Amino acid sequence: MKELEALFYLVPVCSVIALAFAAWQARRILKFSEGSERMVKLAKIIRVGARAYLQRQYRGVGIFFAVVTVILAIMAFAGYLPPFTPFAFLSGGFFSGLAGFVGMSIATSSNARTAQAASGSLNSGLKVAFASGSVMGFTVVGLGLLDLSIWFFILKAVPLPFVAQLKNMVYEGMNAVALEQMQIEFITSTMLTFGMGASSMALFARVGGGIYTKAADVGADLVGKNEQGIPEDDPRNPAVIADNVGDNVGDVAGMGADLYESYVGSVIATAALAVSAGFGFYGVALPLLMAAVGIVVSLICTFLVSCKEDASQKTLLAALRRGTWAAAALSALAGLPLTYLLIVKPGLGGYGYYVAILSGLAAGVLIGYFTEYYTSDTYKPTQKLAETSLTGPATIIIGGIALGMQSTVIPVVVVGVSVMVSFMAAGGAGAIGSAFGSQAANQGLFGIGLSAVGMLSTLGITLATDAYGPVADNAGGIAEMSGLGEEVRKRTDALDSLGNTTAATGKGFAIGSAALTALALISAFIDEIHIKDPGFVFDLTITNPVVLVGLFIGAMLPYLFSSFTMNAVGRAAQSVVLEVRRQFKEIAGIMEGKAEPDYSRCIDICTKSAQREMVLPALCAIIVPILTGFFLGINGVVGLLAGSTVSGFILAVMMSNCGGAWDNAKKYIEAGNHGGKHSDPHMAAVVGDTVGDPFKDTSGPAINILIKLVSMVCIVFSGVMMAVALIK
Amino acid sequence: MKELEALFYLVPVCSVIALAFAAWQARRILKFSEGSERMVKLAKIIRVGARAYLQRQYRGVGIFFAVVTVILAIMAFAGYLPPFTPFAFLSGGFFSGLAGFVGMSIATSSNARTAQAASGSLNSGLKVAFASGSVMGFTVVGLGLLDLSIWFFILKAVPLPFVAQLKNMVYEGMNAVALEQMQIEFITSTMLTFGMGASSMALFARVGGGIYTKAADVGADLVGKNEQGIPEDDPRNPAVIADNVGDNVGDVAGMGADLYESYVGSVIATAALAVSAGFGFYGVALPLLMAAVGIVVSLICTFLVSCKEDASQKTLLAALRRGTWAAAALSALAGLPLTYLLIVKPGLGGYGYYVAILSGLAAGVLIGYFTEYYTSDTYKPTQKLAETSLTGPATIIIGGIALGMQSTVIPVVVVGVSVMVSFMAAGGAGAIGSAFGSQAANQGLFGIGLSAVGMLSTLGITLATDAYGPVADNAGGIAEMSGLGEEVRKRTDALDSLGNTTAATGKGFAIGSAALTALALISAFIDEIHIKDPGFVFDLTITNPVVLVGLFIGAMLPYLFSSFTMNAVGRAAQSVVLEVRRQFKEIAGIMEGKAEPDYSRCIDICTKSAQREMVLPALCAIIVPILTGFFLGINGVVGLLAGSTVSGFILAVMMSNCGGAWDNAKKYIEAGNHGGKHSDPHMAAVVGDTVGDPFKDTSGPAINILIKLVSMVCIVFSGVMMAVALIK
Repeated sequence: MKELEALFYLVPVCSVIALAFAAWQARRILKFSEGSERMVKLAKIIRVGARAYLQRQYRGVGIFFAVVTVILAIMAFAGYLPPFTPFAFLSGGFFSGLAGFVGMSIATSSNARTAQAASGSLNSGLKVAFASGSVMGFTVVGLGLLDLSIWFFILKAVPLPFVAQLKNMVYEGMNAVALEQMQIEFITSTMLTFGMGASSMALFARVGGGIYTKAADVGADLVGKNEQGIPEDDPRNPAVIADNVGDNVGDVAGMGADLYESYVGSVIATAALAVSAGFGFYGVALPLLMAAVGIVVSLICTFLVSCKEDASQKTLLAALRRGTWAAAALSALAGLPLTYLLIVKPGLGGYGYYVAILSGLAAGVLIGYFTEYYTSDTYKPTQKLAETSLTGPATIIIGGIALGMQSTVIPVVVVGVSVMVSFMAAGGAGAIGSAFGSQAANQGLFGIGLSAVGMLSTLGITLATDAYGPVADNAGGIAEMSGLGEEVRKRTDALDSLGNTTAATGKGFAIGSAALTALALISAFIDEIHIKDPGFVFDLTITNPVVLVGLFIGAMLPYLFSSFTMNAVGRAAQSVVLEVRRQFKEIAGIMEGKAEPDYSRCIDICTKSAQREMVLPALCAIIVPILTGFFLGINGVVGLLAGSTVSGFILAVMMSNCGGAWDNAKKYIEAGNHGGKHSDPHMAAVVGDTVGDPFKDTSGPAINILIKLVSMVCIVFSGVMMAVALIK
Repeated sequence: MKELEALFYLVPVCSVIALAFAAWQARRILKFSEGSERMVKLAKIIRVGARAYLQRQYRGVGIFFAVVTVILAIMAFAGYLPPFTPFAFLSGGFFSGLAGFVGMSIATSSNARTAQAASGSLNSGLKVAFASGSVMGFTVVGLGLLDLSIWFFILKAVPLPFVAQLKNMVYEGMNAVALEQMQIEFITSTMLTFGMGASSMALFARVGGGIYTKAADVGADLVGKNEQGIPEDDPRNPAVIADNVGDNVGDVAGMGADLYESYVGSVIATAALAVSAGFGFYGVALPLLMAAVGIVVSLICTFLVSCKEDASQKTLLAALRRGTWAAAALSALAGLPLTYLLIVKPGLGGYGYYVAILSGLAAGVLIGYFTEYYTSDTYKPTQKLAETSLTGPATIIIGGIALGMQSTVIPVVVVGVSVMVSFMAAGGAGAIGSAFGSQAANQGLFGIGLSAVGMLSTLGITLATDAYGPVADNAGGIAEMSGLGEEVRKRTDALDSLGNTTAATGKGFAIGSAALTALALISAFIDEIHIKDPGFVFDLTITNPVVLVGLFIGAMLPYLFSSFTMNAVGRAAQSVVLEVRRQFKEIAGIMEGKAEPDYSRCIDICTKSAQREMVLPALCAIIVPILTGFFLGINGVVGLLAGSTVSGFILAVMMSNCGGAWDNAKKYIEAGNHGGKHSDPHMAAVVGDTVGDPFKDTSGPAINILIKLVSMVCIVFSGVMMAVALIK
């Protein structure tokens, strides 16, 4: 046990290492030049716009957090929740927001520097952008582990008699095993609230940022490209800066908050399953240490991302891949001694848990690969999609949706195999068919959680390769607007295009881990009910009508949520379109480049609409599960969680891949196929791309968060649900 | 019991009444004039084309049926199935196909007659078209009950000692209850195979017909309307006849086979649940008689559909509604004495079963209404959608998908409430929370089946109002092509538009009943396993990973299926587009009306592609569940069935409503809003309508059949699955 305690200290140590590395990288980036005066100015406008948006968002979200904190405080006071939960909730939201903020700050400081560096060589551009991405990646994992450590040590320090009192237990005479169990339950159930805070923040950031970025993008494209016929990122377009701000608040800040939530969510959910699996603190340590080791491994592997001057794009992609694949391989290796130390040596079980970790790692790589296969224009599916543009916009829309639907098959099979393998390997061959709630089954469910942790263990580096994309995108915009010339623009385009590929892989990881984490959270919910009322009788049979109806409502929830987010993008875009049209009409000399458009008006409109529009989808993610609990009770809620996980996973994969494929089909045509730019097929492909924007950058990724937030909300509100449910 | 036997004879009697009524109506229609020489000629081309397609389809499907019959025969020989099943399977397919064929024959004989009658008055046009619809409606229900009766009486006549021998039971010494149970199980499990035959046929008819009609429609529109700028149904368009043939083979023959399957499916599934609910032959009689009484009620109410000469369109809709709503009310009344006779009087239970029937009827009406609300341009949602066309095709696509997604909420809630009400009313308040497999729970599941039967009991008349639409559509085409003048075209357009509204209601019924029937079929599957191996231990807990993975695969299946069907439409449409373009280029004088285009080439291309393309989706509906059973075993299959029902229901509602709303948004613009015909918004709306075509007429409705066919396949192959499953 002493040994174990020493190991626990590794977690905050690794978190500090990650943060220090991020700080070092950030300092390195800031030493680069931002380029000409115009570039400095443009970068500043973008930075100020993005900051202004985030400030406003945090203010709006602050109200939400204040209200929920008060509700949690009342619930804690009434005895439904441990007393620390309101603070845990707040800290989760705070750190998730902070991760997004830091990532965005460095991204907005790197865009002009990337453009400037790219005017030297493609390679230097890549390096600045990748450094910016790794600041974000390591900030996310560093802050995640930091928050986890802080709460872990605080909660562990709470005196046991006090914990017993809180849980209405008699402290005197409890044996060591019961005490440990009580303590872990106390720790993990508080930490799940912290997860709910992170998820709530992530949802707001993803939805708000997603609405912002796509409203600006669609608005800029529809009027600028289609109506006025000026190129993308042209400074004459009044929405062009808003578009660049959007990349930062949506694709950077939103993604940072999102993956922060995924990361801590998977660790917490798995740790919460440790008790019922019978592993005590050893079981809590395994996911935490796996994450900690993953940080070190990822950090080392970032140094593999380098190559000779003036390498081709293919070599660059290979360099990035070398980094992420090496990290996956090292992580796989590192899991072995950890499993030995925490499971095998204390005599708790065998190497099956290692297999569970491996299955998650492998699933992540596979889903990433197939996401790329379906969305990259170097493969058949997207090339064939581009061909359907020959018969107009309708056929490319039909083709894209069909492609997206088909692309769900392999991720479903991969997740299915991963679930079966990790469950059976962890719980032993006897776990299948052993009764609900048996230890073998609980160990199997712990295994599913471990596979999610395994998948996300190398998040530091996968996120770095992912987060560099928007920086490159912005750099391209700045290069265009400050007239850096054809050659530089070509280089930033190459970097941007590479970013699309890594973004696809990143999305695969985010979606796959969301499905596995959500499954672990369902088990955590059931455990939580058991803890609250050990006598509760579950009837989770799928033919129980309460479960079935829950399943229906859960499966419908991602659809309702997506309809809200897509309508929000539509409405916000419409107001941008009207504003851009107005400026072209009323400000004389814009088209001739004699007068400067009013960029800030567009930024302001995007900010306001994103704030207004993010409320409804966020509320439905919280209210629907609570209402379901009130009407259908605990069994119905489990049905709801299963339904939303399954349906949400499939819908998210479909929407993300549809959007990615349309985007790249357009790029494929722009590269000179099927008539190239400004041909009819190109116009059709632009329609596809525009439809795909809210699919892939707003609704799709937000569903990942939705399915976890729903579980966390149910866990936190489980006590109230049990008390007031209409059907018990 | 004597009384009960007498009641059973009512079923064939009512079926004969329905068929006689259909024959009488058909004779009445044929007395009307087909109009001018050109109209006779056009109607003949359409009729011949449609017949040729069906013949070819039946030949193709014949191969499939031959193969499956041989497989079933082998399985029956090996003892996995009762010996009658291959014949039952064939008869289900035959009658389903026959229902489609009859419906299509009368529709292709009524189109010119409707156009001719409409040149007299709007009212006469409506009457001919509605008469044609009612021939179809009553043929479907008549043939359905006929086939059910034939099998029921044949199987009931099989000597009990022989049945016992087939089931490896010892006949001697069995008591009356055990004998009755054995006999009903023998009857219903054979009849479920008959349901599988009907579902298979329906799937082919819906998918093949759906591909045909949409390929022709999309092909005709893309080249004719968009590229050449000629109006819809213009005789210069080489694909125009294929388009009209398509309406008949898709919207008539396909729909007939589809609803035949829904109708018999719900009755058989409910009857199969009678044993485990403890109701014996009384339980079998209730759904059969409810259907029989529904026929009589519907027949009477068709006479309510009449109105004064030259009534407005609103009055016409009111007339149709008077008929369907009166039928629903009468059906609701008729359920009361039936419940008394079959449940209350024999002392089997209370009036809860009547409540179950009522909840189904109410759910059908509600879903129908809200389908109309979301898709008709007299309501806000579609009007708002039309507005999004102002900013181009991309925003109307986004808006339409968001609308479709949002429109899933109310049907999910309605079905959920209906499931809860019918389960609790039938099983008693104690059913929820009583263990899986308890009699109370089984009675509740029987209640869910009854709600599906209740919903479909008035199918005779709802189908009549639904099936008249395509006839009116065709009449419009013939009026246009034979130059009947502006006034007549206006009248047929009015009829057509009215048909869109009734089609929406009809689709609501089809989808709602599919969900409830599929749920009943899941229970029937579980019963079937119990019958085959009374000692089988289920673990249907939703956290059982086998069930979870089944759920994932099941939820993915409708996506895979839709991607196949949409791609099929895309490919088929592409070949039509190329052919139409070729004809415009190569046949001189088409555009001037001097040369006639080669209609038959287009018909031929559609036929061939529809045949080729329907194979893959149909196969995946059969192979995926069987493979799942082999790998994941029985528990996994139950997960699969629940997943495909829930996900398929929601996806089908979404796709159908998207398509309906786009179609009507286009019509709304054509009526002069937002710039009217040939404006930019209109072009955008045409893109939406084209995307919606395969949504609403191919993929969406085919999913209804898919979710039931999957259950039936699993029931029929359950014995083999149990024998070879990897995970037991």
